[in-house]
Amino acid sequence: MFSCKIQNETSYKKEAATHLGSHPKLIITKAGVEQIRKELGHIPIFDASVQIAKEEVDAEMALGIDTPIPKDFSGGYTHERHKRNFFMLEKAGLLYQILNDEKYAKYVKDMLFQYEAMYKDLPVHPQTRSYARGKLFWQCLNDSNWLVYASQGYDCIYDYLSAEERAQLENNLFRPFADFISIENPQFYNRVHNHSTWGNAAVGMIALVMGDDDLLHRALYGIENDGIDADAKDNDGGYIKNEDGKAGFLANLEEPFSPDGYYTEGPYYQRYAMYPFLIFSEALNNVKPELKIFEHKNGVILKAVNALLNLSDADGDFFPLNDGQKGMSYYSKELVTAVDIAYLHGLKNPELLSIAEKQNRVLLDDSGLAVALGIKEGVAKPFEKKSVNFSDGPQGKQGGVAVLRDGDVEVVFKYAAQGLSHGHYDKLSFSMYETGEEILQDYGLARFVNIEQKGGGNYLKENKTWAKQSIAHNTLIQNEESHFQGKYDIGSQHHSVLNFYDFNNDRIKVVSAHETNAYPGTVLNRTMALIRDANFEKPYVLDIMAVTSNQTNQYDFPYYYFGQVMETNFEYTTPEILKPLGTKNGYQHLFVEGHGKANNGNVKFSWYHAGRFHTLTTVTNAQDDIYFTRIGAHDPDFNLRKEPGFMLRKNEAKDALFVSVIESHGSYSPVSENAVNSHSHIAEVKVIYNDNQYTAIAIKDIQGNIKTFIVCNSKVSGKEQHELVINGDTFQWTGAYYFN
Amino acid sequence: MFSCKIQNETSYKKEAATHLGSHPKLIITKAGVEQIRKELGHIPIFDASVQIAKEEVDAEMALGIDTPIPKDFSGGYTHERHKRNFFMLEKAGLLYQILNDEKYAKYVKDMLFQYEAMYKDLPVHPQTRSYARGKLFWQCLNDSNWLVYASQGYDCIYDYLSAEERAQLENNLFRPFADFISIENPQFYNRVHNHSTWGNAAVGMIALVMGDDDLLHRALYGIENDGIDADAKDNDGGYIKNEDGKAGFLANLEEPFSPDGYYTEGPYYQRYAMYPFLIFSEALNNVKPELKIFEHKNGVILKAVNALLNLSDADGDFFPLNDGQKGMSYYSKELVTAVDIAYLHGLKNPELLSIAEKQNRVLLDDSGLAVALGIKEGVAKPFEKKSVNFSDGPQGKQGGVAVLRDGDVEVVFKYAAQGLSHGHYDKLSFSMYETGEEILQDYGLARFVNIEQKGGGNYLKENKTWAKQSIAHNTLIQNEESHFQGKYDIGSQHHSVLNFYDFNNDRIKVVSAHETNAYPGTVLNRTMALIRDANFEKPYVLDIMAVTSNQTNQYDFPYYYFGQVMETNFEYTTPEILKPLGTKNGYQHLFVEGHGKANNGNVKFSWYHAGRFHTLTTVTNAQDDIYFTRIGAHDPDFNLRKEPGFMLRKNEAKDALFVSVIESHGSYSPVSENAVNSHSHIAEVKVIYNDNQYTAIAIKDIQGNIKTFIVCNSKVSGKEQHELVINGDTFQWTGAYYFN
Repeated sequence: MFSCKIQNETSYKKEAATHLGSHPKLIITKAGVEQIRKELGHIPIFDASVQIAKEEVDAEMALGIDTPIPKDFSGGYTHERHKRNFFMLEKAGLLYQILNDEKYAKYVKDMLFQYEAMYKDLPVHPQTRSYARGKLFWQCLNDSNWLVYASQGYDCIYDYLSAEERAQLENNLFRPFADFISIENPQFYNRVHNHSTWGNAAVGMIALVMGDDDLLHRALYGIENDGIDADAKDNDGGYIKNEDGKAGFLANLEEPFSPDGYYTEGPYYQRYAMYPFLIFSEALNNVKPELKIFEHKNGVILKAVNALLNLSDADGDFFPLNDGQKGMSYYSKELVTAVDIAYLHGLKNPELLSIAEKQNRVLLDDSGLAVALGIKEGVAKPFEKKSVNFSDGPQGKQGGVAVLRDGDVEVVFKYAAQGLSHGHYDKLSFSMYETGEEILQDYGLARFVNIEQKGGGNYLKENKTWAKQSIAHNTLIQNEESHFQGKYDIGSQHHSVLNFYDFNNDRIKVVSAHETNAYPGTVLNRTMALIRDANFEKPYVLDIMAVTSNQTNQYDFPYYYFGQVMETNFEYTTPEILKPLGTKNGYQHLFVEGHGKANNGNVKFSWYHAGRFHTLTTVTNAQDDIYFTRIGAHDPDFNLRKEPGFMLRKNEAKDALFVSVIESHGSYSPVSENAVNSHSHIAEVKVIYNDNQYTAIAIKDIQGNIKTFIVCNSKVSGKEQHELVINGDTFQWTGAYYFN
Repeated sequence: MFSCKIQNETSYKKEAATHLGSHPKLIITKAGVEQIRKELGHIPIFDASVQIAKEEVDAEMALGIDTPIPKDFSGGYTHERHKRNFFMLEKAGLLYQILNDEKYAKYVKDMLFQYEAMYKDLPVHPQTRSYARGKLFWQCLNDSNWLVYASQGYDCIYDYLSAEERAQLENNLFRPFADFISIENPQFYNRVHNHSTWGNAAVGMIALVMGDDDLLHRALYGIENDGIDADAKDNDGGYIKNEDGKAGFLANLEEPFSPDGYYTEGPYYQRYAMYPFLIFSEALNNVKPELKIFEHKNGVILKAVNALLNLSDADGDFFPLNDGQKGMSYYSKELVTAVDIAYLHGLKNPELLSIAEKQNRVLLDDSGLAVALGIKEGVAKPFEKKSVNFSDGPQGKQGGVAVLRDGDVEVVFKYAAQGLSHGHYDKLSFSMYETGEEILQDYGLARFVNIEQKGGGNYLKENKTWAKQSIAHNTLIQNEESHFQGKYDIGSQHHSVLNFYDFNNDRIKVVSAHETNAYPGTVLNRTMALIRDANFEKPYVLDIMAVTSNQTNQYDFPYYYFGQVMETNFEYTTPEILKPLGTKNGYQHLFVEGHGKANNGNVKFSWYHAGRFHTLTTVTNAQDDIYFTRIGAHDPDFNLRKEPGFMLRKNEAKDALFVSVIESHGSYSPVSENAVNSHSHIAEVKVIYNDNQYTAIAIKDIQGNIKTFIVCNSKVSGKEQHELVINGDTFQWTGAYYFN
């Protein structure tokens, strides 16, 4: 496989883009090139993608090649220039193969030699913030990005170059580059982390192009004896060293993905990591098919694409779990890669084609061709998102994430592991969506990715002081402390535990999980149901959080909504001046905009946002406090979004039960000025039974109809018979819950 | 014209919808019905509109007729039911004519008789808030809405009814109804106000159907000797009595419209008023063509449609001047009416057809047919919005409103009269838009129209305490007092004065106006320019506000932006607790989120919103204060939107000059995570000359290019020659300004 490195260069060069030679073979293949050239002009989505790439590359070529001396953070000129350069290396390489136009090969060659000329004397990047500084960029991560793309460009012009030219590039640029990001930066390279995945893929891809088996071994299995301190941490506070000491691409494939394909850092980073996972896997599949990389761990890499697509809302935006930037979606280039590769190397799932149609572009290679042909042949089917549950952890035994879906409503429930260094302290938190709009939000990260003027485009200090803290999430906070004391060392040892889920009932989707370690001595048990009821316009959410503790605590329970307060059924006052709710653990970032005492019975809170009404009806007693909060206190650089929250507080309680129904209802149009169904349809929510065995809730609508939901609080197998008498009524059922 | 009231009813009834009889004649005509029936099925947009109406009416008919005893405010059941009823009367009437199906005639008849049965004993509405309570609704205004629509329904089934039936309806329902909203409520009916326009149209339309010339006279000329106190006011604080004592429809057509067709209350209310203006004008044109109503005041009513369409942003949303609810647009039903009628009765302007295409529905009458046929024939042309200036005042001599447009950027500059009772104290204020998005906002009104749970859907108290106040607008505030002390009595006596405008230069659109009465002893002079410069990505705004006063004052100058702070070039602190900026005149509603001292030279402030970057560069000195503000203090019912502001303050100044450049630049996508052109291209803005004759500004970009703008501060004819030497450079020009 690595035998044809040296050839007669003169003859070679002339016939480079026709038939002879061993390259390209990495991503686009010789067979692929042949077929693409045959189909070109008759595959609309592929043709359009070629045209866009051509316009982009032609425009860059007209500007000339610039490889400036590195100095900036992301967002700055030198960073952005080198980033554009590596995209150009890949794209121009592909265009050379597809269009058979030597000018693109020359452009790639010239740029590579310009890098070759600068690289050997290049010091590490002058910005010192990273735990692993790169040379072209401020962090090795970005240098690895460069090499992943540059390898593809090099592969495309490999046969166009002479043996001497190749030797020069490999000796002065590619091998030193690969060594720098691996051997010289083991703290970056030898981890189980998305950074390392990029590093591994970079080293592995250039190894495959060069036919260097030693380097490939380093990519797959990491560096032996890296000498890294077991306590060393990265910039995000994550441990460098993995417990079992495994490293390399295969370890990165093993560890962070659950058997269901859920990536423990969450969908935003999964999206980022998917590119090196998939592109290197495809390269391995092309060059080393005997490794059967797509079958590794029961085909986890293709399952991961499916999981990722399912972790997006109706608009294709990924749920911003952990450090996730809102708005990132399956329209990103990484997901074009993911969808195209998963289509070609999976079972040609026609549902993927409908995503590709929405993306409206394909990769300029064999997988893109396959997708373009599939679309042309009209075999695309809608990608149907159903309620799903994904386990977390290498063996799928560290909690998980569930998405309840019914109609336009989606509920995302997180009972996962810590999520490595990008995890938040948000055990049993949830968020709610309707038609792709956030109804109750997960704040996501505190960062303006690649916007230089906001902290160099990097994580802002408020990511740690606010976004990661428990109070920033729709979950329970005890005594104003974050889960696991907000400590990564503790949080990363634990995970929540699934009680059960059931998505097989047309009228109710339900998931339940518990958490015993977030607050030692306290057990949190949350059950979330999405209920379809003909007396309601839309499915509504039933939210039951049961807290039991061995001591008396204060319990806070926030809901982060959007928009404006419409209606309440309790008395509250608004202060003349706004003060922070607390002093630490994120509480210092919340202003109190209003405070009231709850009712005995139900507190109702309605709000309006973006054309829709929403109502929270929650079981309270007169001792409970209600707070209207707003994010944004202690925010000297205006880094936070000043968004509102509604918070319940139970004081001096040992055990506590938060039971709420959340409705999305009606509509308002400023054009017709009609308010439709603007009031809640819930008359009363009542706890009719509660002990350590069962919790039973009665939900009465405004017509007087009553629905009863009973959940078992002890572990159930799913086959057990239950009988419970409440107020003289006998309820009998099999399994973990009753609903009727 | 009114001669065929009594006919042989038996024969009549049978042939009602075919040929005999005098009706319909009001809006849909007999000739129109004939042509519609002929074309039906071959005019897609009309056919679709019929289908929608049919589905709506059929659904309502299936529910049965309900005419509940009135009790609710807008948003409540009885209000919304009676409102739906009058729409049904009109729509079912039209369907009867178009589809020739008697069931619709019977439905209209049954509903009218149900109203007839209840009306004679109906007391005034139990809600007492209105200065002119209706019977079916809480205010006469809504009763008038009812009659305007019911008249059309009655006209459509007129020939279907027997003479006795007509007599019964007219004697017990229509005449008492018309008398109630006119003679019994002169304080509502006999005004120059959008309320009265509805009242006049209601009375006039039923008069035309019934052939009652006396009533028609009352509609056109109002009630003589109404006995109203000259000092009486309505709920909004507006005077009931007009200065010259004129009333009736023609007075309402004379007074509030300028010769350019600008309606003094602003586009939101113009939109609302347009319906009765146009529908009654069309009725008059059909039944009394000798009145030549569409030629009245040089065709002002059709000019008004054009003005209204031009007072919308790129998405068709009306600029929310004065009390305007954001989001109201030319997609509203009133504008469907306006566009269709203006098309038929104007010169069949093909640009109106493109608006109708966007609206995607037409009126079910002669004008809708004309539009549908025009669209079918493919003669539609894009509606091109250019920079425009509309005078205000009956003779066009009370200031005006200008819209500067270039590319995607729009600047709305208001130097108008008070705008009757819906006016705001916002002399020389402006707002800025890009591709239909607000960049610098006009807050609009403080009201949730028709959302019952927010103050009955009516104006909220914050409309007066915040939305109307000067500090709520992008203009100058002296000593924390609103213009005209925030008093309607004073404000309604004055208006700003245009200095000049010029839209004929490709590189610059400019408008300039002054205001001498807002603060006695102080002159405000504001010049706004929209400048196109090849060194900038988009046109930028130059904003010059010159203040001269006979005393020392504090001057505040806010800019209400959206989104998040990106970058500043001055030192500021953010407080631990948020306090209101002031105690009254709207200042009590602003929290101070940050405070700093300005630089000697330029203060720069960049922000990010919805995918775009914006930068304000403003000339300051070290004594100036900078405030970051947020709306929402003293807001006990959460009625205000918690949106940010950036405010300059000059302390203890007599004369002051605020000079700013506002750029919209670049883009950011959370999908690509690319920040493009995220920094300002302005290096420096400098006042290079300033006296009572000229103000000269130099704008230097980051490449060092300098543009000079000079504006004449004294009245210019436009033909004068000017010469000015600044720092040794001689500038010569003709007219009111220099730019190069």
